[in-house]
Amino acid sequence: MTIETPYLLFLGDAHDPLAAKVAQGIRDWRPDYAVGQFRMEGCRADMKLPDMTLAEAKAAGAKTLVIGVANRGGVISPEWKKVLVTALEEGFDLASGLHNLLRDEEDLAAVARATGRKLHDVRVPSVKYPIANGEKRRGKRCLAVGTDCSVGKMYTALAMEREMHARGMKASFRATGQTGILITGGGVPLDAVIADFMAGAVEWLSPDNDPDHWDLIEGQGSLFHVSYSGVTMALIHGGQPDALILCHEPTRQHMRGLPGYGLPSLEDLRDLALQLARVGNPDCKVVGISVNTAAMSEEEAKTYLAGVEKRMGLPAVDPYRHGAARLVDALAQV
Amino acid sequence: MTIETPYLLFLGDAHDPLAAKVAQGIRDWRPDYAVGQFRMEGCRADMKLPDMTLAEAKAAGAKTLVIGVANRGGVISPEWKKVLVTALEEGFDLASGLHNLLRDEEDLAAVARATGRKLHDVRVPSVKYPIANGEKRRGKRCLAVGTDCSVGKMYTALAMEREMHARGMKASFRATGQTGILITGGGVPLDAVIADFMAGAVEWLSPDNDPDHWDLIEGQGSLFHVSYSGVTMALIHGGQPDALILCHEPTRQHMRGLPGYGLPSLEDLRDLALQLARVGNPDCKVVGISVNTAAMSEEEAKTYLAGVEKRMGLPAVDPYRHGAARLVDALAQV
Repeated sequence: MTIETPYLLFLGDAHDPLAAKVAQGIRDWRPDYAVGQFRMEGCRADMKLPDMTLAEAKAAGAKTLVIGVANRGGVISPEWKKVLVTALEEGFDLASGLHNLLRDEEDLAAVARATGRKLHDVRVPSVKYPIANGEKRRGKRCLAVGTDCSVGKMYTALAMEREMHARGMKASFRATGQTGILITGGGVPLDAVIADFMAGAVEWLSPDNDPDHWDLIEGQGSLFHVSYSGVTMALIHGGQPDALILCHEPTRQHMRGLPGYGLPSLEDLRDLALQLARVGNPDCKVVGISVNTAAMSEEEAKTYLAGVEKRMGLPAVDPYRHGAARLVDALAQV
Repeated sequence: MTIETPYLLFLGDAHDPLAAKVAQGIRDWRPDYAVGQFRMEGCRADMKLPDMTLAEAKAAGAKTLVIGVANRGGVISPEWKKVLVTALEEGFDLASGLHNLLRDEEDLAAVARATGRKLHDVRVPSVKYPIANGEKRRGKRCLAVGTDCSVGKMYTALAMEREMHARGMKASFRATGQTGILITGGGVPLDAVIADFMAGAVEWLSPDNDPDHWDLIEGQGSLFHVSYSGVTMALIHGGQPDALILCHEPTRQHMRGLPGYGLPSLEDLRDLALQLARVGNPDCKVVGISVNTAAMSEEEAKTYLAGVEKRMGLPAVDPYRHGAARLVDALAQV
């Protein structure tokens, strides 16, 4: 599944800017993909892109209408439907990461069939993945692993990719979640893959490449998060990373969604992830630490990062605050 | 999904006794479930059960015809079909672990609908499992983990269950694979569960129970097997085991299906599995070692087991050769 670019970003009637997280991700990380935005009455999100009608976007070359906003109550409203059906009629494919699938809407499915357009529901795999064979692939791979879920793994990988491209390095962000897939137009929705094929899906996602090419594989879950650790394990063993980045959010009180579970230390994460990664790649190294310091003042963040850096002997940065340059410096040494 | 017992075991035209592995498992571990066997012309397997027609089995109380034999070439032959269709007409449910699903056979599906009978395809989940919540459940749990796949984890758990029942202990084997599900009539086909729900499926499989009750959860894969390690991880974190049994096959040259991968040591397995298990259950202990010594002479096996026992300071037995009593002794101490 590859989603055809460029996109028209559908912001619908977003009730606040946060609801348009997917659109914001595309705007931030793949601005070239976004020719414009489509906003309905009452929309409170704004990507600072040209507002376009479907016809204007078509004329500007847009191929896919991407639903860049969460819907309310898991229902695709009649108002949305009108736009989506018209978009199909006008020759757009549709792409969505909504829980309720486009393909399950009878009208959208029928119009897509009649017009020959594609409905990309990125929450469900569209590929029959193989069972992992564990064979060494050419090229290099970096994986972000976290002390917990939602600590900035995707952001870290995207920030590193951008920095690497700016330096003329060969690098590809490899999406493993819905948002990442919509941002970049392809990937594996790993949490929806059948257990036996998880590691194989990651191998499929990160095939042989040039010896100096880096795949930046989007991490998921955490080895220490009992709900999702199996997915993280498959990323480590299917990904065969040469380099690991440790990701952390220092103000979190307990594992996300698990009030009874404290967070591991960065040292625990380093030791466990490295041991597991070396099963698949004995040369794997931990090269740096990415800390989400959003909840800290600039001063607190600097002090915290300096402390981690000293303690762990590895570059520790918040890529959102300070850029990913030092993480890329470390990667370039591998 | 619970398969109604007792069973009539369908051996079909098994070309050799090994093809009837599922039937043999039921015969060995749930003899009360098997009222008889149904053999077709040319069948070379024999469970030493009464040969019965469908009518005789019905009269003897059989509720489900279990396909206890692998088919050839992944096709359900016309000869099998005749028996299966007649069985549905006679009021039997059908249960199968075949790769090609009963439900995908139009004739079987139609007859099952018309007669109100059930088709149990145990390779595919029939339950919408929750996401794991990591909450502590009452009762105790034992999980077998292996240095590799197919080292005797299911056999170990079933042998322990039998020994525990003989001692009047409360114990339930909890199946996580197709063969185990067919043997015991229920369970979770974990390798076919969607990634996000693996650990939740294991929680579902092993709910609250009496404080002195043991679930013996069937292990899958290996933490060191890069193709399937994610499944093993979900068992460890969803299972919250109080006790681990380490399983090993000492003559294996490389990880099953992965020629480039050597086996870990029992010490490696102990340390890694225990560390991971303690994320979900800080009191987890490794209590014993189960070694598949089928490829060794009696003398070699005894010497090997004595060596492991001394080295590891844990009871080390081959439950097939010497019974599971010493593993259960160890469990009873937890």
